Amino acid sequence: MANHYPNDKLKIFSLNSNESLAQEVADEIGRPLGKCSVKRFSDGEIQINIEESIRGCDVFVIQSTSNPVNDNLMELLIMIDALMRASARSINVVMPYYGYARQDRKARSREPITAKLVANLLEKAGADRVIAIDLHAPQIQGFFDIPIDHLVAEPILTEYFKSKGLEGNELVIVSPDHGGVTRARKMADRMKAPIAIIDKRRPRPNVAEVMSIVGNVEGKTAILIDDIIDTAGTITIAANAIIESGAKEVYACCTHPVLSGPAIERIDNSQIKELVITNSIELPENKKSAKIKQLSIAKLLGEAVIRVFEEKSVSTLFE
Amino acid sequence: MANHYPNDKLKIFSLNSNESLAQEVADEIGRPLGKCSVKRFSDGEIQINIEESIRGCDVFVIQSTSNPVNDNLMELLIMIDALMRASARSINVVMPYYGYARQDRKARSREPITAKLVANLLEKAGADRVIAIDLHAPQIQGFFDIPIDHLVAEPILTEYFKSKGLEGNELVIVSPDHGGVTRARKMADRMKAPIAIIDKRRPRPNVAEVMSIVGNVEGKTAILIDDIIDTAGTITIAANAIIESGAKEVYACCTHPVLSGPAIERIDNSQIKELVITNSIELPENKKSAKIKQLSIAKLLGEAVIRVFEEKSVSTLFE
Amino acid sequence: MANHYPNDKLKIFSLNSNESLAQEVADEIGRPLGKCSVKRFSDGEIQINIEESIRGCDVFVIQSTSNPVNDNLMELLIMIDALMRASARSINVVMPYYGYARQDRKARSREPITAKLVANLLEKAGADRVIAIDLHAPQIQGFFDIPIDHLVAEPILTEYFKSKGLEGNELVIVSPDHGGVTRARKMADRMKAPIAIIDKRRPRPNVAEVMSIVGNVEGKTAILIDDIIDTAGTITIAANAIIESGAKEVYACCTHPVLSGPAIERIDNSQIKELVITNSIELPENKKSAKIKQLSIAKLLGEAVIRVFEEKSVSTLFE
Amino acid sequence: MANHYPNDKLKIFSLNSNESLAQEVADEIGRPLGKCSVKRFSDGEIQINIEESIRGCDVFVIQSTSNPVNDNLMELLIMIDALMRASARSINVVMPYYGYARQDRKARSREPITAKLVANLLEKAGADRVIAIDLHAPQIQGFFDIPIDHLVAEPILTEYFKSKGLEGNELVIVSPDHGGVTRARKMADRMKAPIAIIDKRRPRPNVAEVMSIVGNVEGKTAILIDDIIDTAGTITIAANAIIESGAKEVYACCTHPVLSGPAIERIDNSQIKELVITNSIELPENKKSAKIKQLSIAKLLGEAVIRVFEEKSVSTLFE
Amino acid sequence: MANHYPNDKLKIFSLNSNESLAQEVADEIGRPLGKCSVKRFSDGEIQINIEESIRGCDVFVIQSTSNPVNDNLMELLIMIDALMRASARSINVVMPYYGYARQDRKARSREPITAKLVANLLEKAGADRVIAIDLHAPQIQGFFDIPIDHLVAEPILTEYFKSKGLEGNELVIVSPDHGGVTRARKMADRMKAPIAIIDKRRPRPNVAEVMSIVGNVEGKTAILIDDIIDTAGTITIAANAIIESGAKEVYACCTHPVLSGPAIERIDNSQIKELVITNSIELPENKKSAKIKQLSIAKLLGEAVIRVFEEKSVSTLFE
Amino acid sequence: MANHYPNDKLKIFSLNSNESLAQEVADEIGRPLGKCSVKRFSDGEIQINIEESIRGCDVFVIQSTSNPVNDNLMELLIMIDALMRASARSINVVMPYYGYARQDRKARSREPITAKLVANLLEKAGADRVIAIDLHAPQIQGFFDIPIDHLVAEPILTEYFKSKGLEGNELVIVSPDHGGVTRARKMADRMKAPIAIIDKRRPRPNVAEVMSIVGNVEGKTAILIDDIIDTAGTITIAANAIIESGAKEVYACCTHPVLSGPAIERIDNSQIKELVITNSIELPENKKSAKIKQLSIAKLLGEAVIRVFEEKSVSTLFE
Repeated sequence: MANHYPNDKLKIFSLNSNESLAQEVADEIGRPLGKCSVKRFSDGEIQINIEESIRGCDVFVIQSTSNPVNDNLMELLIMIDALMRASARSINVVMPYYGYARQDRKARSREPITAKLVANLLEKAGADRVIAIDLHAPQIQGFFDIPIDHLVAEPILTEYFKSKGLEGNELVIVSPDHGGVTRARKMADRMKAPIAIIDKRRPRPNVAEVMSIVGNVEGKTAILIDDIIDTAGTITIAANAIIESGAKEVYACCTHPVLSGPAIERIDNSQIKELVITNSIELPENKKSAKIKQLSIAKLLGEAVIRVFEEKSVSTLFE
Repeated sequence: MANHYPNDKLKIFSLNSNESLAQEVADEIGRPLGKCSVKRFSDGEIQINIEESIRGCDVFVIQSTSNPVNDNLMELLIMIDALMRASARSINVVMPYYGYARQDRKARSREPITAKLVANLLEKAGADRVIAIDLHAPQIQGFFDIPIDHLVAEPILTEYFKSKGLEGNELVIVSPDHGGVTRARKMADRMKAPIAIIDKRRPRPNVAEVMSIVGNVEGKTAILIDDIIDTAGTITIAANAIIESGAKEVYACCTHPVLSGPAIERIDNSQIKELVITNSIELPENKKSAKIKQLSIAKLLGEAVIRVFEEKSVSTLFE
Repeated sequence: MANHYPNDKLKIFSLNSNESLAQEVADEIGRPLGKCSVKRFSDGEIQINIEESIRGCDVFVIQSTSNPVNDNLMELLIMIDALMRASARSINVVMPYYGYARQDRKARSREPITAKLVANLLEKAGADRVIAIDLHAPQIQGFFDIPIDHLVAEPILTEYFKSKGLEGNELVIVSPDHGGVTRARKMADRMKAPIAIIDKRRPRPNVAEVMSIVGNVEGKTAILIDDIIDTAGTITIAANAIIESGAKEVYACCTHPVLSGPAIERIDNSQIKELVITNSIELPENKKSAKIKQLSIAKLLGEAVIRVFEEKSVSTLFE
Repeated sequence: MANHYPNDKLKIFSLNSNESLAQEVADEIGRPLGKCSVKRFSDGEIQINIEESIRGCDVFVIQSTSNPVNDNLMELLIMIDALMRASARSINVVMPYYGYARQDRKARSREPITAKLVANLLEKAGADRVIAIDLHAPQIQGFFDIPIDHLVAEPILTEYFKSKGLEGNELVIVSPDHGGVTRARKMADRMKAPIAIIDKRRPRPNVAEVMSIVGNVEGKTAILIDDIIDTAGTITIAANAIIESGAKEVYACCTHPVLSGPAIERIDNSQIKELVITNSIELPENKKSAKIKQLSIAKLLGEAVIRVFEEKSVSTLFE
Repeated sequence: MANHYPNDKLKIFSLNSNESLAQEVADEIGRPLGKCSVKRFSDGEIQINIEESIRGCDVFVIQSTSNPVNDNLMELLIMIDALMRASARSINVVMPYYGYARQDRKARSREPITAKLVANLLEKAGADRVIAIDLHAPQIQGFFDIPIDHLVAEPILTEYFKSKGLEGNELVIVSPDHGGVTRARKMADRMKAPIAIIDKRRPRPNVAEVMSIVGNVEGKTAILIDDIIDTAGTITIAANAIIESGAKEVYACCTHPVLSGPAIERIDNSQIKELVITNSIELPENKKSAKIKQLSIAKLLGEAVIRVFEEKSVSTLFE
Repeated sequence: MANHYPNDKLKIFSLNSNESLAQEVADEIGRPLGKCSVKRFSDGEIQINIEESIRGCDVFVIQSTSNPVNDNLMELLIMIDALMRASARSINVVMPYYGYARQDRKARSREPITAKLVANLLEKAGADRVIAIDLHAPQIQGFFDIPIDHLVAEPILTEYFKSKGLEGNELVIVSPDHGGVTRARKMADRMKAPIAIIDKRRPRPNVAEVMSIVGNVEGKTAILIDDIIDTAGTITIAANAIIESGAKEVYACCTHPVLSGPAIERIDNSQIKELVITNSIELPENKKSAKIKQLSIAKLLGEAVIRVFEEKSVSTLFE
C-alpha cells in the first residue's frame, strides 16, 4: 500500500460502492486507505466503525451513490455522522457519481426534488465539502451551501477519441436529446467538429414517437455523448438511426456508466462500435462487454484531493 | 375502501414497507389511503409521485423502517420532500418500527449515533411530527425537536396473555438482558408477577460466556419480554435455560418482530411455546410459523391519528 | 378598486417594480391592493410602512426583481421582514420575474451562485412560499426548501401565435442557443412543428465566432423562442441568419422582456417581424416599439393566488 | 500556579460551581486558570468579564451544572456567549456533572425533555464540543450534534475497591433499581463478581411498595452502584435490605454525589459502611461525613483536555 | 375563577415569578389559568408537568424574568420545551419584565451580550412570539426573528400624574442619566412640560464624580423617569440634587421596579415624595413602602393577549 | 502597490463603495488588494469574479454600505457567496459604514427592522466576522451571532479638535438630539468640557416645532457631535440656534458623512465654522466643500485587520 505522502493529517476512506477507484486514488496520492469497518447486520442495518483516530484530520470519503443507491447513500451519511462525532477537522465527500441527480426539479406536480434532498441530507449530517464530477445539471452546485468542487471528466473522453485520430469535419458530435446539446457543443469545440441532435417527438397523443436527426451526419464518424447512460434505450436507438442516416460509424461515450437493466444487451446488439466510459461507477463482471472501454478518473480525483488538502487552487481541474 | 370519516383534510398515505397495516389503519379511521405511486427505476432509484392534491391537508405517512431499512427510510424522506413541496399543511410520520433505534449512543469510540442521524434527516426533510411505538430507548424522543407521540403496544401483549388466564405468582416475567429489566418490571406490575433476569457474562477474556438466571423461575410459567427480537439468539438460549432451570413452560413476546437471519428456525427449534408479536413489521410468508401469534396495532394507530388530527389529547394511548 | 372577493384574510401587496401588473392581478381576484408606503430616503435607503393590519392574514407580495434589480430585491426582503414582524400568517412571494436567475451555477472558478443566494435571502427573511413563472432553469425550484409554485407562461405565447393561424409544418420553432432546445421542442410540440437550433461556435481561440443553423428553415415561418431576452444581440443575429437561410418570415418571443441596453434598437433594426412578450416585467415608455406585442399574465397569476389561498390544486397551471 | 504546559493557545477557565476541581485539572495540565470575573449584581443577574485575550485560542470551560443548577447553567451559557463574541477558536465545555440529565425522556404526557433542552441551549450559545462523565443515559450523547467526549469514571471507583482487596465471588454488585443493571454488570465484570437487583414494586395501587432482592447476597460483601445519588432514599433502604438478607457488609458508590436534602443524614444512619464518590460535584463542608470517601477525577479530565487540544485519540479514556 | 371568554383554544399559564399579575390578566380576559405544576426537586432542578391538554391551542405563558432571574428564565425555557413537545399550536411568551435587558451590547471587550443570548434561547426552545413591555432598549426587538409585540406602559404612569393635576410648565421631567433623555422627552410631550438632565461626570480619573443638572428645575415639581429602578442609587441622589437646586418637590417613576439591595431604604430616606411603579415585577411584602404606589398593567396585557389571539391589530397598545 | 506584509494567507478585497479607503488600508498593512472584477451587466445585475485563488485564506472584504446602499449591500452579499464557494478559510466583512443602521427598531407598528435584516443576510451569505465603526446603536452588535469587532473613531475626531487647542471649560459639547447625549458626554469627558442638548419638541399637534437649548452655551466654543450627518437639517438648525444663544463659534463633527440631498448647501449656508468627518464614506467631488475636513480611519482599520489576522487582542482599538 502506497504511503509516500508526507502528511498524515490527510485521511482517505473508502466505503463500499467503488473500492477499486478509491484504492487507485489513494495510490495516486500516496496514502493508505483509512481503516474502517462497514458491515451489514442480518436485518440490513449498516454498522460502521472507524478503526483509527481521525481527530483533527482532513478526511476524504470516497463513495459513489450508484446502485444500490439507498444503501450507498446511507453508508455515506452514517460515515459522516461518525466522523463528525469523532472530531474530524473537515469532512470532504468525494462523490464520483451523484445518485438521484436526474431528479433535480419538479417535472410534474407533487414530485420531490430528490437531488436537493440528498444535498440537504449531506449538509445536515455534517459534510463540509463535496467533490463531484460532471453533475447531471450544473445547477446542482447551487443545491449546496458548502463549497463544492465540480470536476470535469469529459476531457478524458475527448483525449481518448483524439488518440484514435478522430477530429475535425469528418466527425460529428451528436446529442441524444434536447437537453444535452450544450454538452455536445463543448465536446465538438474541443474536437473542431460540427454537431447534430436527435429530435424525438410525439406528433399526437397515443401515436408512436417519431425520431429525426437535426443536423447532418452523412458520411461522418458520429460520437454520441451523454453524461449518464442508464438503460441505454435512447442511445442505442439514436446510434442505429445515425447509421441509417448514412453515418460511417458511430461511437458513444458518457462519464457515468449506470448501465442498468437491459443496457449491456442493447449495446451489444446496437450499431455502436465502441462505448467509452469512466470508472466513476464500478462495472461488475456481468456488465463487462468487448464493446466497452473504461477510462480511469483516479488521477483527476487524486490531484483534486491533494490540492484541496494543501489549499491550492483546483480551478485547473474544472476546465 | 372505507370512507366514512367526515373530513377530507385528513390524508393517509402508505409507502411500501407495511401496506397491510396501513390499510388496516385507514379502515379503522374510515378514510381511503391516498393515491401515490412509489416505484423503482431499473437503476434502483426511487420515484415517487403523489397522485392527488394534498395542499393544505394534514398528511399522515405510514412507514416502518424495517428491512430493507435504507430503501424504506429513503422512500420516507423522499415522500416528505414531495409533500413539503406540494404544500401539505402538516407532515406526520407514523413509524410503527423505527429502524436503527439500537444505534442510539456511541458504545465504542468513533461510532455513529445513527438513531439520531435518522431523527435529523426526518426533521431536515420536513417532518412536523412523529408517531412511534415502543422505541428501543425512550430517550430517542429527545433526538427530535418536533413533537413525537410515543405510543405503547405492550398492553396489547399483556392483554393477550391475560386472556389465556396467565397472571399472578405462578408467572414470572423474565428480562433476556440487563438493559430490559425496567420493561420486564412494567409487564410484571400489570400481571402481578415477580421478575427474573438472564445474566450473561464472560468470566475472563477468550473464555466462553456464562449464563445464569438471577431470580426464581422454578415451577412457573415464564414470559420473556423484549422490545425487538432480531436474530432470536438471545431469546431462544434464554428460553432453553429457563426450562432447564425448572420452569413449567416459557412464552416470549416483543413489539417489533425483526426476525432476521436464522430467527424463525431458532424459534421453531427452541423451548419457546409461543412467540407473541405485533404487526409493527410485516411478516413475509416465509417467516410465518405455527409458534408465532401476531396481534394488530392498527386500532391503536388509528385512534392516535384521529386524535392528533382532531387536536385531542393522545395521552391515554401512552399508558 | 375591485373588492368582490369575499375573504379579507387574503391580502395582496404591490411593491414598486411592476405596479400595473399587480393592480391587474388584484382586479382579477377582486381584492384591493393592500395599503403600504414604500419610499426612499434621500440617502437611498428604502423605508417601508405597512398601513393596514395584516395580523393572521395570508399575504401575497407581488414584485419582479427586474432592473433596478438590487433595489427591487431589497424592497422585497425588507417587506418580508416587516410582514413577519407584523404577524402575517403566511408570506407568499409572487415573483413574475426572478432576477439573477442566469447566475445559477459556477460557470468558472470562484464565481458566486447568485440565484441560490437570492433564494437563501428570501427564505432567511421569512418567505413561506414563492410563486414564479418560467424560471431560467427549472432546477432553481430546488434552490428553495419552501414550496414553490412554478407557473408556465409559454402557453400564452403559443395561443397568440395560433390565433394568427400559425401552426404545423410550415412553421419551424428555433432555439437561439444550445441550452434552449428543450424549450423550443415543447413549443414545437404544442404547434406540431419541427425545430431548428442556432449553433454558434468559435473555431479557434481569437477567431471570430461562426454561426450556423442546425435544422431546416427554408421557406418556413420561423419562431425564435427564449425565456429571457436581454440585450437582444443573440436573438436579432439569429433572426437575420434565419432570413438569410431562406425563411419566409421570423417572429421572436419570450416570457421575460429584460430588453436592456441596445435591445429595442436592435429589434427595430432586425428582420424580426414581431416580438411577443409578457408583462412579467413592466415596459417603460421608452422601450415601447411598434414591433413589440405584450400579453398579460395577470389572469394566470390571479388564478394561482386564489388557488393557493383556498388550498386548491395549482397543478393545472403548471402545464 | 502551575505553568509548565508549553502552548498558550490552550486556555482553561473555571466558573463558580466547582473551582477546586478546575484548579486541580489546571495543575494536572500545567496551565494557570484563565482570568475572568463572574459576579452577581444585587438583582441576581450574572455579570461575566473575561480578563485576558482568548482570540484564536482553544478554550476549555469547566463547570458542573450542579445545585444551584439554573445559576450554574446560565453562568455557562453566558460565558459561551462571551467567548464566541471574543473570537475563541473553539469553545470546549467540560461538564463533570450534567444537570437535568435525569429528565431525558417524556415519562408522562406533556413533560419537557430538559436534558435535550440543555443540549440545545449549549449548542445555540456556541459550544463546539462537550466533555462529560458518566452521563445518566448514554443516549444523551445523541442529544448533541457536536462532538461529545464521554469519559468513564467508574474504573476509578472500581480501582479503589480492588485496592481494599475486594474482588471475586465473595462480592456481589447490586443495582439499586431496574434501570441500573447494565452498570452493575459492567462493574461486576471488572471485579469478577455476580450481581443482584433490588426489585421494588407496588402490588396494587394504594398499597405500600414491596422490596425484594433478585439474586443472592447472603454472606457476601455487597457493593451498591449508581451513577447519581441524590436524596439517598433508594440507596439507604437498599443497603439496609441487603444486610437484612444476610450480607456481611455493604458499600455504596456513585460518580455524581448530588446528596441533596436528607441525603447525609440518611447515609450516616444507614447500614452503608462507606460511600465512595468522585469530585464531579464539589462537596460543601456541611455535607462532609466520616462515611464518605471522595476520589478525584482531575487526572482523567486533565488527560482528556490535553488530548483534545493536541488532537490525539481520547478513546483510551472511554473504557 | 373567571371563565367567560368563549374560546377554549386560548390557554393562559402562569409560572412562578408573578402569579398575582398572571391571575389578574386571566381575570381581565375571562379565562381560568391553565393547570400545571412547576416544582423544585430537592437538588434544585425544576420539574414541570402540564396538567391539561394544550394540543392545538394558542398558549400564552406569563413570566417575568425578575429575581431570581436564572430560575425564572429556566422555568420559562423548560415550559416552552414542554409546550412544544405537547403540540401547542403557538407558544406566546408574555414577559412583563425582560431580565438581562441591560446587557444589550458589549460595553467592554470580551463581554457577553446576554440580552441577545436570552432571545436566542427563547427562540431555540420554541417560542413563536414575545409580548414585552418597555424594553430597556427598543433595539432588543431586533434580537428576535419572531414577532414581538412591544407594549408601552408609560402612559399608565403619565395618567396617574395627570390625575394628580400635574401638567404643563410648572412641571419638569428629568432624565436621571444621559441615555434616558428620549424617554423623558416623550413623557414631557404628553405632559406639555420642559425637560432636564442629570449630568454626572468624572473630571479626572481617581477624582470623585461631579453631578450637575442641565436644564432648569427651580420652583418646579420634578418627575424623574426611568425604565428600571434597581438599587435606586442614581435616582435618589438625583432627587436630592433636584431639591437642592430649588425644585418644589420631586416624584420618581419607572415601569420595572427591580428595587434590589438597599433600594427601599434609599427611597425611604430620600427626598422623593412618591415613587410610582407598575406591577411588571411582583413586590414582595418586605419591599412595600408607604412612598411606593404600584399601578397595574393587567388590563394592558389582557387586551394584548385577546387581540393577538383574535388576530386583531395590537398597534393601538404601542402608543 | 505595497507588499511588505509577510503572510500571503491574508487577503484584502475592495468592492466598489470606497476604493480609496480600501487602498489606504491595504497600504497600511502592506498587502496588495486582491484581484477581482465587480461589474454590472446592462440589465443592472452585478457580476463578480474573483481572479486569484483564496482557498484556505483569511479574507477581509472592505465595503461601506453607503449610497447606493442596495447595490453596495448586494455586491457584498454576492462577494461573500463567491468567497464561501471558493473555500475561503474565513470571511471577514469590514464595513466602515453600516447602511440601514438607523432602522434598528420598530418605531411604529408594522415597520421592518432593516438593520437586523442586514445582519441576518450577512450571516446567511456566509460572513464569519464583521468589523464596524461607531454603529448608530451599540445594540446592533447583538443583531449578530458571529464575532463583531466594534471600533471607535470618535477619538480621531477629538484629537483633531485638541490639536486646535480646543479643550476644557471654554468649550461645550452639544448633542443635536435627545438620543445622542451619551455620545456627547463621552466626547466631553475626553475634552474636560460641559455638555448641552438641543431640545426640540412640538407643543401641540399641528403646531410648529419649538427648539430650545438645555444647558449653557453662552460665550463658548460649541462642538456639535453626531454619529451620522445625513441631510444636515438638524445639525445646521442646531448650529444656528447655538450661535443665536450667544456661543462664540460652533463646530460640527461626525463619523459617517452621509451628506445626502441638500446637506452640502445647508452646511455651506450655516453658522458651522468647520465640519469634521472621517472617510468611512467616500466623498464624491461634488460634495467637497471648503468647510469640510475629512480625517482618515485607514490606520485604525489596518491595525484591526492585522490584529484579527494574527489573533491578537483588538480591545485597545475599542476605547
